[in-house]
Amino acid sequence: MKQRVSVITLGVADLGRARAFYETIGWSTGAGQEDDVVFFQAGGLVVALWARDQLAEDSCVTDGGGWGGITLAHNVRSPAEVDAVLAAAESAGATIGRPGAATFWGGYSGVFLDPEGHPWEIAHNPPWTLAEDGSVLLSA
Amino acid sequence: MKQRVSVITLGVADLGRARAFYETIGWSTGAGQEDDVVFFQAGGLVVALWARDQLAEDSCVTDGGGWGGITLAHNVRSPAEVDAVLAAAESAGATIGRPGAATFWGGYSGVFLDPEGHPWEIAHNPPWTLAEDGSVLLSA
Repeated sequence: MKQRVSVITLGVADLGRARAFYETIGWSTGAGQEDDVVFFQAGGLVVALWARDQLAEDSCVTDGGGWGGITLAHNVRSPAEVDAVLAAAESAGATIGRPGAATFWGGYSGVFLDPEGHPWEIAHNPPWTLAEDGSVLLSA
Repeated sequence: MKQRVSVITLGVADLGRARAFYETIGWSTGAGQEDDVVFFQAGGLVVALWARDQLAEDSCVTDGGGWGGITLAHNVRSPAEVDAVLAAAESAGATIGRPGAATFWGGYSGVFLDPEGHPWEIAHNPPWTLAEDGSVLLSA
C-alpha cells in the first residue's frame, strides 16, 4: 500500500449546511446544487461531503454518533493566520473548541468544530515546511 | 481558509500495534521507537498516529468510542491492485469490511478496518486521474 491518502470523506447530517460552511470559509467545488456528494479538490487529494448514514454503511462500521478518533489539521504560515482562520470559521458557523494559543509542541494552534462536529486544528508549526503549493513536509 | 489538509491524525489505543500495522503494509516513518507520535509523510500531507484519549482532549471533543463520521480512501490503478492491497492489509492484521467488488458509482472498491477500527476504502476510480506522484485529481 503506497504511502498516500486519496480521499477524506466527512459524513454530514445536513449536506447543504456543510457545503455552505466550507464555501463560506473559501473553498470551492464543481458539484451541482442537486448532487448528493460534494467534492473539493484539496491539493493532491479530495475532501468529500456525504450523508453520514450512507458513509457509515459504505464503510462497514457502526456510527458511534460522536467523534470517532480522527482529527484533521490545516497548517498556516503564522500565528496571526491561525487566528484569522478561526475567526472566519466561527463567522461561518463553526464552534471554537479552543482559541489560538501557544502549544506544548512549540507551535501555535486552535481548534474549530465544523457545523457537523468535525474538529479541525488550525496550526502554525515552524519546524515543518509549508511549501508554496500548500504541501506540508516533515523535514524542515 | 485555503483548500487543503495538512495532517490527518488517527487516534490509537495501541501505538505500537498501529505503527507495526502501517509499517507492515509498506509505510515508513522516521519516528523513533520511543516517540509518542508517529508521523508518516503521505504525499503533500502528514498522517499521524497518536493516543486516542490525548487526541480527543486536544481536539476538544468527547470520544464517541466508535466510528465518528470520517472515512479515508486510498486510490489505486486497477481492480487487481484493490484486491492486492486488501489482502496485504488483512495479512497485516486488518479486518476486511467488504471485499473488492464493483461499486454503484462505477468503480471497484473494498474496505478494510485497521487494527484500531479506522476504515479505509481501497478504490479504483477510472473517471478520476491518479497522477504518477499519487495525487488524485477530480478532472479526468
